[in-house]
Amino acid sequence: MPVNLQAPTSLLAVKGITLSAVEANIRYKDRNDLVLIEMSEGGTAAGVFTLNKFCAAPVNLCRQHLSENTSPRYLLINAGNANAGTGEKGLNHAKQTCSILSELAGVNRHDVLPFSTGVIGEQLPVAPFKASLPSALEQLSEDNWILAAEGIMTTDTVAKGVSKQIEIDGKTVTITGIAKGSGMIEPNMATLLAYVACDASIEAELLQQVLNDAVADSFNAITVDADTSTNDSLVLLASGRSGVIITENNRDDFQQAINAVCQQLAQAIIRDAEGATKFVTIEVESAPSRAYAREIAYTVARSPLVKTALFASDPNWGRILMAIGRSNVDDLDVSKLSLWLGNTQLLAAGEPLESYREEQGQREMDKEDITIRIALNAGDTAARIWTSDLSHEYVTINAEYRS
Amino acid sequence: MPVNLQAPTSLLAVKGITLSAVEANIRYKDRNDLVLIEMSEGGTAAGVFTLNKFCAAPVNLCRQHLSENTSPRYLLINAGNANAGTGEKGLNHAKQTCSILSELAGVNRHDVLPFSTGVIGEQLPVAPFKASLPSALEQLSEDNWILAAEGIMTTDTVAKGVSKQIEIDGKTVTITGIAKGSGMIEPNMATLLAYVACDASIEAELLQQVLNDAVADSFNAITVDADTSTNDSLVLLASGRSGVIITENNRDDFQQAINAVCQQLAQAIIRDAEGATKFVTIEVESAPSRAYAREIAYTVARSPLVKTALFASDPNWGRILMAIGRSNVDDLDVSKLSLWLGNTQLLAAGEPLESYREEQGQREMDKEDITIRIALNAGDTAARIWTSDLSHEYVTINAEYRS
Repeated sequence: MPVNLQAPTSLLAVKGITLSAVEANIRYKDRNDLVLIEMSEGGTAAGVFTLNKFCAAPVNLCRQHLSENTSPRYLLINAGNANAGTGEKGLNHAKQTCSILSELAGVNRHDVLPFSTGVIGEQLPVAPFKASLPSALEQLSEDNWILAAEGIMTTDTVAKGVSKQIEIDGKTVTITGIAKGSGMIEPNMATLLAYVACDASIEAELLQQVLNDAVADSFNAITVDADTSTNDSLVLLASGRSGVIITENNRDDFQQAINAVCQQLAQAIIRDAEGATKFVTIEVESAPSRAYAREIAYTVARSPLVKTALFASDPNWGRILMAIGRSNVDDLDVSKLSLWLGNTQLLAAGEPLESYREEQGQREMDKEDITIRIALNAGDTAARIWTSDLSHEYVTINAEYRS
Repeated sequence: MPVNLQAPTSLLAVKGITLSAVEANIRYKDRNDLVLIEMSEGGTAAGVFTLNKFCAAPVNLCRQHLSENTSPRYLLINAGNANAGTGEKGLNHAKQTCSILSELAGVNRHDVLPFSTGVIGEQLPVAPFKASLPSALEQLSEDNWILAAEGIMTTDTVAKGVSKQIEIDGKTVTITGIAKGSGMIEPNMATLLAYVACDASIEAELLQQVLNDAVADSFNAITVDADTSTNDSLVLLASGRSGVIITENNRDDFQQAINAVCQQLAQAIIRDAEGATKFVTIEVESAPSRAYAREIAYTVARSPLVKTALFASDPNWGRILMAIGRSNVDDLDVSKLSLWLGNTQLLAAGEPLESYREEQGQREMDKEDITIRIALNAGDTAARIWTSDLSHEYVTINAEYRS
């Protein structure tokens, strides 16, 4: 069960963007598993991809197509097979799926960006694409965002999507995003995919900057299990059909709206993390640098012992100290450190507060949304990340997945 | 249940070393929880300690005493309370326990090295030391190694100890070691303690070098959950009573014997890791450097998804690739990589072997002792580490510990 998260009941259409989802039976039966997103001509796209060196064939191909062409026309997404760990053959299969679509649609192959999510190490069958893409093209519609959000799911328990509208220069810009993923990774069903589209007009280079900035504090500020997928991909499309032109001069409001959509999608992924019973925010403040703050936040977030204490609703703050203490940072002065669970302070200047009572910590840990706040008193930079707990359900999902 | 590990039924006495274990009721009832080790005058000691910045009060004090004095007379160890996260007060308590013993035994305070293991964040009571140390001193005997191994246990399910004898210069050197710990860490019951004693005579500086070398491929080559304890300590004592003098010239056999004892103790800790059902060896070979090989080995060993696959006996090699791919190393050429489970090869030159059949992988994963071998074909350095799997029992132990 996701933590304080429900599937969206409606998502706003974005001018110039149409979608469809069909049953291709690539692995799943009786559900949509092939999603097509079309952008009208003249739009721009930006993307960020996994840094995993064993990245999947479609990730390599997608990155290449986007580098040749920042005005792609189609995003082609399948669920059920990741096409990762599949060698040269897998790359050929990914190319074939793009070619099938580009021929049907009368565009170039590099107008198609391919994405796959699902089991690693099995070859992607090409026949289902040939059979299903004609109807996928026929069914393209502005109103299919929720169908698309559902069609890209793997172990997700709810579909994830967000819409937002802002006024820029007196006109309305609509932004809608969808995402899938029950963690940074579940490499069997690999993994995080997210698509955000808007109808603003924006040059590809600036769009990439906006996306990079938005990702830093959203998709790059989450962890379920420290594992990085072979298939993580996030694409931002700008169709330009709202008539609003975004430049450096009016970028701020647009940036904030994209940030908000990315943060909400990233949080949704953590709220639906494998086996999650808690949604945990870790804030590190007064650090010498952002990297310093993030290293400490991530070390706490990744610690299996902190995560099992969170699962147990156990205010076992010794484990948090242990994780902070093993962070890979220089010159950490533990005698300056303060620690809070929610609004309850546990430590000041590195010493346990005499006034702290276990019941106070228990009250904070009993909540579903928990905040761990760490003040280093060693600078003026902060970082915030989101994570989940480590439950029996996590072990069950990941141990029994293939059985 | 430990993986292919039984408690020792006998351990060899080491000349010049006596031990005792008594019931001090520091936290546990009806079991020995205070262990005393005495070394005769003129022996030498070397130690290695946790790098965790929130290290416990006794670790700081022990490190200080050993820096002032490499010929300590007593090791004073309690189980049940880690005296970590206890601030200035905790340091004073650790000093008091050393003073009580030094006064009773007529030695200096820095002749005593203190060690604590147990719950973090609770103040260590001093009264039980006052009450129990007189009888601990009375009961010192060469034959109490097993009692001592049992007395330092916390969540360990079996006592851990190893003895070894070697001939050097025509005389016999006896080495006995004991250890406790169910992982690199379990910070509630923190954590790894190990004591190795021998009756060779060796200068403190060389003894420290021998220990550092032995640790690199033993205690520093294991992980349960990537978490580093606040209390990890390992001490090597050399009483000198065998009449054998170790120098740089005859160091090799001695070094190898100490290596063997440390490796066996380190392996014992992994075989008894929290919730372990598998003992896993990860070998990375033909790497550009040892650090490079270790980073990859540790990333695989720490991956929750690899660990849950191991628990499930699932030959899910995609997870191993994923973990290798996210290792923090430069210039990893995945197209050169070969991978084996046991003697079964899965990947050659980065491509899945067509001849591989899932049944072969299944046969390897069904074993309790599993070896994952990764050849990078990018150099001539190798590294080997040991780890355990991630089971429901691990979550149970760490989630339910305080409840």
